Amino acid sequence: MSDMTKDVGKEIKRIAKEVYSTITDKKLPSLNMPIRALQNVKYDPKIGYFELVGKNKERTLAASTSRTFAQTLMMMNESKKIVETDDIATKREVYYISKNWGDARFNDQPESDTVMDDIEAMMMINREQLGFIPEEKGGDVAGKLIVMDKDTDTGKEIKIDCTKFGSGAYSVPSSVEHLKFQTDAKFILAIETAGAFQRLVKHNYWKKANCILISMGGVPTRACRRFIRRLADEMKIPVYVFTDGDPYGYLNIYRTLKVGSGNAAHINQYFCVPQAKFLGVTPQDIIDYKLPTHPLKDIDIKRVKDGVKNDPFVQSQKEWQRALDLMVKMKKRVEQQAFAAHSLNYVIDTYLPEKLKNPKTWLP
Amino acid sequence: MSDMTKDVGKEIKRIAKEVYSTITDKKLPSLNMPIRALQNVKYDPKIGYFELVGKNKERTLAASTSRTFAQTLMMMNESKKIVETDDIATKREVYYISKNWGDARFNDQPESDTVMDDIEAMMMINREQLGFIPEEKGGDVAGKLIVMDKDTDTGKEIKIDCTKFGSGAYSVPSSVEHLKFQTDAKFILAIETAGAFQRLVKHNYWKKANCILISMGGVPTRACRRFIRRLADEMKIPVYVFTDGDPYGYLNIYRTLKVGSGNAAHINQYFCVPQAKFLGVTPQDIIDYKLPTHPLKDIDIKRVKDGVKNDPFVQSQKEWQRALDLMVKMKKRVEQQAFAAHSLNYVIDTYLPEKLKNPKTWLP
Repeated sequence: MSDMTKDVGKEIKRIAKEVYSTITDKKLPSLNMPIRALQNVKYDPKIGYFELVGKNKERTLAASTSRTFAQTLMMMNESKKIVETDDIATKREVYYISKNWGDARFNDQPESDTVMDDIEAMMMINREQLGFIPEEKGGDVAGKLIVMDKDTDTGKEIKIDCTKFGSGAYSVPSSVEHLKFQTDAKFILAIETAGAFQRLVKHNYWKKANCILISMGGVPTRACRRFIRRLADEMKIPVYVFTDGDPYGYLNIYRTLKVGSGNAAHINQYFCVPQAKFLGVTPQDIIDYKLPTHPLKDIDIKRVKDGVKNDPFVQSQKEWQRALDLMVKMKKRVEQQAFAAHSLNYVIDTYLPEKLKNPKTWLP
Repeated sequence: MSDMTKDVGKEIKRIAKEVYSTITDKKLPSLNMPIRALQNVKYDPKIGYFELVGKNKERTLAASTSRTFAQTLMMMNESKKIVETDDIATKREVYYISKNWGDARFNDQPESDTVMDDIEAMMMINREQLGFIPEEKGGDVAGKLIVMDKDTDTGKEIKIDCTKFGSGAYSVPSSVEHLKFQTDAKFILAIETAGAFQRLVKHNYWKKANCILISMGGVPTRACRRFIRRLADEMKIPVYVFTDGDPYGYLNIYRTLKVGSGNAAHINQYFCVPQAKFLGVTPQDIIDYKLPTHPLKDIDIKRVKDGVKNDPFVQSQKEWQRALDLMVKMKKRVEQQAFAAHSLNYVIDTYLPEKLKNPKTWLP
């Protein structure tokens, strides 16, 4: 059992004791947790992620809250058992476990997910630390990185060398809190599509550029974001992001990776990667590299204009505003694969080396 | 360059020469390819996958077909270059390459995908053998398997031991034609969800059961299906499938893995896994294991009834008809995670061992 899990177990006991002693004092027990919503969020570039501004809600035991109150305590108890036995449970499994809780059982998974989010926010830790893991996996890795994991049966350390997987890759597990790293790579390149990742892996691009390649497969999962964040923090290496040049790549994939999202503000501090820089494909790259494009749809243009107007991240970044304005003016989007129009490996021979040498062409 | 790629290059040259000599003879050249549609398909359990019944279409050079004709030849030329340089190109990259083909360039990707499918069908090989790889990745693997790949730069063999990934996994590349295998595993367990896979990996289930675990992540991609097929054929080991007990798990995931799909009939022979058996979760398991369920929606019931009536696979399998009838009668579906209601590791300690001992409880 690691120090972290000991602390989680302890903290759950502390909260439970407080509730218990309040009850034995014949008072009504209550649980305190921050409100999780965009209205309770601010963005400061110096902090680097969407932060809670501190509005709290209190759940005091009453006739109307007794069921949720019981569910919260039962789920905390489940977490304690899981971390103490070094096990894991997916969100869906937790929902099924509740079927044994009598009247406190959940009727559907959204109900149990909400209680899980509340506990996360109340304890200000992420649910992976509570032993609750996401359903989805965490991205693919190739290149100059050794990941240290351990064998569940023997507890022995396992070294996973991400230079040794040929055309394949290391698939990041759903929970990454226990992993350790070794690397002398110069940077992490986080890539949107599996296709672009596969080309860079096929040509051992990580060897030439001395880097770590990570395939996000669209909007990165929690595990993928946490993996990149921990790797970048602990190994002190920069993170460059390479997506399609479209509103989805800019405002969903990159924005979520870098600063997090509004409705999960209580966990952004663990899952965002504030040190990330946007390498490309930028709207300016379309002009500089004479790339074939697709027309932007009206709905895309609306999405970009909304972003410029309402997204706290874009509002604080003049360079992003200028880039998005240029995109709206050109009414064009571009894909990572568009470099193939010059030649299949133009992205490896020309585009990535030129961009890496020229940080002025990046976006913050 | 492997024998396979030499053959592809040779075959492309042969077809091109034929077209060329027909033209120099002042005749109109033509290309022959099978019609790719459900009406041109049959299912024979002894063969094990949807087969083409042999209707062909002929593309003869004429004013109306000249553009498609040119595109077909240009794409074959591109394939020849790619296999000769041991490179790869995604479907989307091929579309962008065409931007240099003057009037023969594709206007959108569905157009270029159709020509790629035609070439695949004409040459009766899969497009990975033409050097064209899918955008998406190919599934995760953990357990008793060594995959042999090679280093692109040095050509040296790389051995990837799938027992050495800790809580992570080996991520299968987009194209698997070049991989070789070593294993003494007793079976392959193909799993629908990343969550169920993660539990089995966390507890080293592959060690206890002496098997290979493969996470399909929903409907398996081409690369995932081809990987399982090649592994099962070449190592002569059985394939057991473990999905949610719902119409999607039965008629989309399992059916596609085992016999293929209608609109890709020309490649089913490479991508299906006829030896696959359905381990669970079956409708009967809901009763036998007292599992918590969800109600089936009307649209699900309609989907099942359609399947029983129209799906050539279901029509030929009495046991599947009975299982689907039971499902419709109960109006219930069940998830892989439902075993957690008994205890978190019930699936490992009880369900999987019992099912593996009792092939009578499987479906064909």
